[in-house]
Amino acid sequence: MRNKIYVLKFGGTSIANIKRINYVANRIYSYVKKGYGLVVVVSAMGDTTDNLIRLARKINPCPSEREIDMLISTGEQISVSLLAMALHKRKLDAISLVGHQVGIITDTKHTKAKILKIKTERIKKEVNEGKVVIVAGFQGMTAHNEITTLGRGGSDLSAVAIAVSLNARMCEIYTDVEGVYTADPRIVPAARKIKRITFDEMLELASRGAQVMQTRAIEVAKRFNIPLYVRSSFNKKEGTTIMGKIPYIEEPMVRGITLMENEIKITIRNVPDKPGIAAYIFTQLASGDINVDMIVQNISHKHTTDISFTIPKSSINKVRKISSRVIKRIGAESVVTDENIAKVSVVGVGMKTHPGVAAKCFHALAKNKINIEMISTSEISISCVVKKKMGKKALRILHKTFGLGKLSG
Amino acid sequence: MRNKIYVLKFGGTSIANIKRINYVANRIYSYVKKGYGLVVVVSAMGDTTDNLIRLARKINPCPSEREIDMLISTGEQISVSLLAMALHKRKLDAISLVGHQVGIITDTKHTKAKILKIKTERIKKEVNEGKVVIVAGFQGMTAHNEITTLGRGGSDLSAVAIAVSLNARMCEIYTDVEGVYTADPRIVPAARKIKRITFDEMLELASRGAQVMQTRAIEVAKRFNIPLYVRSSFNKKEGTTIMGKIPYIEEPMVRGITLMENEIKITIRNVPDKPGIAAYIFTQLASGDINVDMIVQNISHKHTTDISFTIPKSSINKVRKISSRVIKRIGAESVVTDENIAKVSVVGVGMKTHPGVAAKCFHALAKNKINIEMISTSEISISCVVKKKMGKKALRILHKTFGLGKLSG
Repeated sequence: MRNKIYVLKFGGTSIANIKRINYVANRIYSYVKKGYGLVVVVSAMGDTTDNLIRLARKINPCPSEREIDMLISTGEQISVSLLAMALHKRKLDAISLVGHQVGIITDTKHTKAKILKIKTERIKKEVNEGKVVIVAGFQGMTAHNEITTLGRGGSDLSAVAIAVSLNARMCEIYTDVEGVYTADPRIVPAARKIKRITFDEMLELASRGAQVMQTRAIEVAKRFNIPLYVRSSFNKKEGTTIMGKIPYIEEPMVRGITLMENEIKITIRNVPDKPGIAAYIFTQLASGDINVDMIVQNISHKHTTDISFTIPKSSINKVRKISSRVIKRIGAESVVTDENIAKVSVVGVGMKTHPGVAAKCFHALAKNKINIEMISTSEISISCVVKKKMGKKALRILHKTFGLGKLSG
Repeated sequence: MRNKIYVLKFGGTSIANIKRINYVANRIYSYVKKGYGLVVVVSAMGDTTDNLIRLARKINPCPSEREIDMLISTGEQISVSLLAMALHKRKLDAISLVGHQVGIITDTKHTKAKILKIKTERIKKEVNEGKVVIVAGFQGMTAHNEITTLGRGGSDLSAVAIAVSLNARMCEIYTDVEGVYTADPRIVPAARKIKRITFDEMLELASRGAQVMQTRAIEVAKRFNIPLYVRSSFNKKEGTTIMGKIPYIEEPMVRGITLMENEIKITIRNVPDKPGIAAYIFTQLASGDINVDMIVQNISHKHTTDISFTIPKSSINKVRKISSRVIKRIGAESVVTDENIAKVSVVGVGMKTHPGVAAKCFHALAKNKINIEMISTSEISISCVVKKKMGKKALRILHKTFGLGKLSG
């Protein structure tokens, strides 16, 4: 049985200024009046983190990651104290806590630390005294009292991890969108808000471009089966529940479609077709911390083959350096990069039991003269790389093809 | 024997922007090259603290002091990390530490906490590894892991207390003035920089208007006999050493003159002339945390007397409230406030052995038709309250009278 505790998380845009902080304080007030135990996790206000990093780089273009953590963890410390003051103004008992006070213990990997343990004594004590506990998201401390941060989107992870460690009833993620959509509504006007979605589907959507929540946070929620509720901090409309199993009568085949436009396709040409070569290439990339996504090995001609893969745009310099070393070592011909790509992905657990999804997807694109350059599939998703200028069109076509629009219910 | 450790303190104006931080980093570099162990205490950049407090008051006009500490302690955390980055850029090994990492243990009086103990293990470990240790001034933590601040000018206190706990050779206070002057050079152009001054004299000057250093910090330095060196962070000119005893051949009679223009004179009229009344009045004021300065009881007429005292302008509302309650209770007539005053003070340990100072002071003012409204004396100072418009003139006259100007050596 879960505790009667709600964990709420408010992102940077949700508390970007005083007006927004007051709005959030009013939202929190309504939970307190319902008698819930409340832990509120907040990010830094608006662009604070980016601004601090910019300031740091003016002083040192390559600042130490330890000092970056020392610097940027102040952002959340400012927001927790201001939100506590806003709650005090409303005669609510509230207390702010930063990472070292809560006891969010992490490993020592500065700027991308992993949470090892959360000590719950302090939070529980304050909640039991009837206080709203405001916790600085994104930050933790090592066993040796060093300040760490959890990487981009880390406040989501803080919220989920705290919800897990408190055995909270629910973790609500207040953000600047109203929930999870069948596709990005800015590109697909017919996109529909999804009422309920499984962790697995959400993970696929998130890792394929849906920027609703941090992927690591969803993984943790899945592992401990803590339901998440994603909703807007700007209005009171219903959001999206992310949960383990949805009791459908008939499972929809496809839950949502995503588009990613910030990847680059790398092709290594004329790779000698010998065992162990691909393993070598991707081990080298992995050791450079490169997040390789789709990998396709083309049909080999004679004794060589082409290997293509996609990477985030931000990794391009690292990848160029590693690849040029790698091709010399393995005797490949050249490295070709192609920024002119977009990736559309179709996601849904229903695919497991509906074998026709891939065919339907390829057919719809072909009928609309959209050429597919790469394909990769998982149990619950199909991704196609197309020319960049075709990306948005492909998204809209697939959204319609699988009947996800408002009119098609 | 003291350790070969120097503690340097840089105030807010000294590190107000990136250019200033780089300048400070260069100054620190020159100490490292001399082989000193270095602990650097810094304040928040420029007006950061004031700006954060202003922000807080927009959210809650009466913010809780605990949350204020949580908020404003971020200012120093930002400056320590940026300064560490600037030192790294110069290939120096440096590490920033905030209050809870150092172990600056304070009592629980938020926004004006007192230091109880400084754990030196962490600082010593880092210094022994050859690192420049950058410590966030102004802040500490309670035994229960709550963040506290030490009150205005608290970074001076942090620096001195750390110097004491490390048994440092010297504590250098880098600030926006070049040292301690015989009088404020903005008002008295002939004012001379003082090369050496005793703790007692500096305490008198500081408590009577010389805004060079926090008084509490000087008191601690005096108690543990840690020499202080006050100097400019804008140039390399010699500053002022503050120390226990100066081996003079002949002690100068007067060391410096100060002017205070931010006090108010309060007069309680027709106080019944009975034992215990004065004690009652000032106990009431003390329990309201009012810093009462000069107290003068006028000649009593019949069975009543007038009692006058001065208070800082900032306490006026509190004092009005307390006084009006007090006069009802003791049956006095009324409370009169007079903002139209200034206080000049003559300070010097030499006074102890030169009995003519007070007479010389009164005579000089009288000769220049400056009426003295109140007088108070200590062993090493004489203070006179005059009309506000006469303050600056009185300062200049006394400065000349005691031969403190450049020409009179």
